[in-house]
Amino acid sequence: MDECGSYPRRTTLPWVVGVTQVLGLTSVVLTGVWMGRYRGGFAWDGSAKEFNLHPLCMVLGLVFLQGDAILVYRVFRNEPKRNVKLLHGGIHLFALIFTIVGIVAVFDFHRASKIPDMYSLHSWCGIATVVLFCIQWVLGLMFFLFPVASAWLRATYLPLHVFCGVVLLVMAIGSCLLGITEKLLFSIMSTYSQFTAEGVLANCLGVVLVCFGVLMVFIITNDDYRRPPHPEEEALSVHFKTLTEGASSPTP
Amino acid sequence: MDECGSYPRRTTLPWVVGVTQVLGLTSVVLTGVWMGRYRGGFAWDGSAKEFNLHPLCMVLGLVFLQGDAILVYRVFRNEPKRNVKLLHGGIHLFALIFTIVGIVAVFDFHRASKIPDMYSLHSWCGIATVVLFCIQWVLGLMFFLFPVASAWLRATYLPLHVFCGVVLLVMAIGSCLLGITEKLLFSIMSTYSQFTAEGVLANCLGVVLVCFGVLMVFIITNDDYRRPPHPEEEALSVHFKTLTEGASSPTP
Repeated sequence: MDECGSYPRRTTLPWVVGVTQVLGLTSVVLTGVWMGRYRGGFAWDGSAKEFNLHPLCMVLGLVFLQGDAILVYRVFRNEPKRNVKLLHGGIHLFALIFTIVGIVAVFDFHRASKIPDMYSLHSWCGIATVVLFCIQWVLGLMFFLFPVASAWLRATYLPLHVFCGVVLLVMAIGSCLLGITEKLLFSIMSTYSQFTAEGVLANCLGVVLVCFGVLMVFIITNDDYRRPPHPEEEALSVHFKTLTEGASSPTP
Repeated sequence: MDECGSYPRRTTLPWVVGVTQVLGLTSVVLTGVWMGRYRGGFAWDGSAKEFNLHPLCMVLGLVFLQGDAILVYRVFRNEPKRNVKLLHGGIHLFALIFTIVGIVAVFDFHRASKIPDMYSLHSWCGIATVVLFCIQWVLGLMFFLFPVASAWLRATYLPLHVFCGVVLLVMAIGSCLLGITEKLLFSIMSTYSQFTAEGVLANCLGVVLVCFGVLMVFIITNDDYRRPPHPEEEALSVHFKTLTEGASSPTP
């Protein structure tokens, strides 16, 4: 009964993951269309075209790739854990690279246009997300890919790592929504209320990002989609159990 | 060892709940000071003073009270479940009343000032949150307070009710952050970048709301803070177990 009860939900995993990918790619495409079609395109010359790389890189890196890096533990549930860990860290590395390019683009544009930095709520939330994302990436690397921490420390840190990962994804999406609102009011304040195409497109981008976030959190927090225990990992996890009785399972 | 392992975390519950209350009350006070001190105060006359009731009511109702309504299952962990349910529904009723007053205030102000409705990302996210909040409240009432649904249906709906509750709280906070950004850019766009007192105060309000949300989600998702099984409820839950083998515990 237990297996029968959870079987139908397990089979929905490819479908819900598929929907997240459609939503994630749609958000990247909508950002590209918004910046490319309505804001003049992209360049690396200190102009507004360099700023346009900022939203594209943040949506691609800090939202879509960060989300996919988390999802690998659900999608590759039957692959060896070491490989999945490497993929998780690898996608996060790409996410980090796009994030850094996006951050450099906006600071470079501000410097060239003599616009003050870090005064808005978007910038406060955004920079907090980026700094915490970097810390989370370095700690994750040290704790789970390189044998720096003890087994006890790893098992203790794991639930916090998972919680912070979800919080960071939600904070990244929240920061993007603030950025969308800021950009629209800076660019089309006088026509925004007339439901112009650019405003509606950017609003739709925001809605797609919210749907992506809700579905991602649903997948991550749903026990039926969790990685099942594997025999060879079970043998290893005995150490965890002995050392940390009462701690959560070391499978994120 | 199991009990010892979780005991220190359990004792932290009053402290983390205390911090959420300080953060929640601070957010309400900061909103009141922002609207009262910098935006001319409050009235019910269709003017900007009526609009000022909108942020105050939304932060108080849809964030602070909604959060507290969820928290009662953790704070009153040893009270009879029926009483806790009534308190949960009752606080949500107050949250709903403040939310409706806040929504009426902004639509009334828009009508009096001939400002179009529902064109911004803040309004799209906000109205989605309010509509879903109303649906969630009515369904919660029907499923858990009045004997409309079968035990099987209640046990099946419970995890979705809990998930949607957390999503709605996060969406409410996200909508508030969008509203803060919108209000600041409408009111002080030319001086916002000079770190004026009003801008910094409103940014701090945003940061307090984010901290409130993160801590609330931490408490809600932490197994150690969950309501322990009670003997008299265990007897009742046998029905649930028999009917829904493999389903989650009916304790939110």
